Amino acid sequence: MSDPKWLNEKEASMWRGQVDMWRRIDREIDLQLAGAGLSRAEFELLGPLSEGLEEGIRPKELGATVGWDTSRIAHLLRRMEKRELIERYDCDGDGRGTVVRITDGGRKLMDGAAAGHLALVRRLFVDRLTDQEMEVLSRISLRIRAGIDPPGR
Amino acid sequence: MSDPKWLNEKEASMWRGQVDMWRRIDREIDLQLAGAGLSRAEFELLGPLSEGLEEGIRPKELGATVGWDTSRIAHLLRRMEKRELIERYDCDGDGRGTVVRITDGGRKLMDGAAAGHLALVRRLFVDRLTDQEMEVLSRISLRIRAGIDPPGR
Repeated sequence: MSDPKWLNEKEASMWRGQVDMWRRIDREIDLQLAGAGLSRAEFELLGPLSEGLEEGIRPKELGATVGWDTSRIAHLLRRMEKRELIERYDCDGDGRGTVVRITDGGRKLMDGAAAGHLALVRRLFVDRLTDQEMEVLSRISLRIRAGIDPPGR
Repeated sequence: MSDPKWLNEKEASMWRGQVDMWRRIDREIDLQLAGAGLSRAEFELLGPLSEGLEEGIRPKELGATVGWDTSRIAHLLRRMEKRELIERYDCDGDGRGTVVRITDGGRKLMDGAAAGHLALVRRLFVDRLTDQEMEVLSRISLRIRAGIDPPGR
């Protein structure tokens, strides 16, 4: 067994490679989304909102979906409401309280950003993997995620 | 061939799994480092500084090492100087201008944070991978990184 505190050379090189790869990918994604008028956080929140039903989503449900805590969600939603990407309204009578939904302007921005985002993800990452590598990555993330609570819990 | 703009079901599931896995890992790392008194950015800058030579490193070289742009490096170094994690001094006569080096206090904080960080990386990620999976991850990151310029270039 290795010393639990340190990584051996092979492990350290693998870890550094992963950290650096994701730093580069994240940077490219941030730049592309910024060019399309959205921050990464806005894009990630608009995802479930644009796929959501007409009647909108409660902020708490949205937080559980994207895995962020309540205060971060509240802060982002306030900013996005000011930018008219989302709107809030009260659900009368069904006991769900305030819900948020995407505006037409938000949907338009999101549609433009999403096409470029997915093309970029394909070009930088997905198209450069073999089928077997994709399967290994899927298997790894399934196993690792099962061992870590989602943020916001 | 798939439509270049969209991901098929298998690709999308693999991508979402990776994004979610790294979000969870990053969150755990941020929490551990915060408990040890450092932000993730400070930790990443102190890494090369704690391994560096006695004579210190120029901010520009440090930026190239961690892959961040000059203005982000400058901002962080100012904050870290105020916190007395690093110090600056002039290299008289060797033409290198101002260099930065880690303080004794910075090194102490870093040593404590690094042991916990590596134990966490091992527990959450490295120890849950087979040798073959580690090799696949190393191969993938080598290939993908070669196709993306490092941030800061």
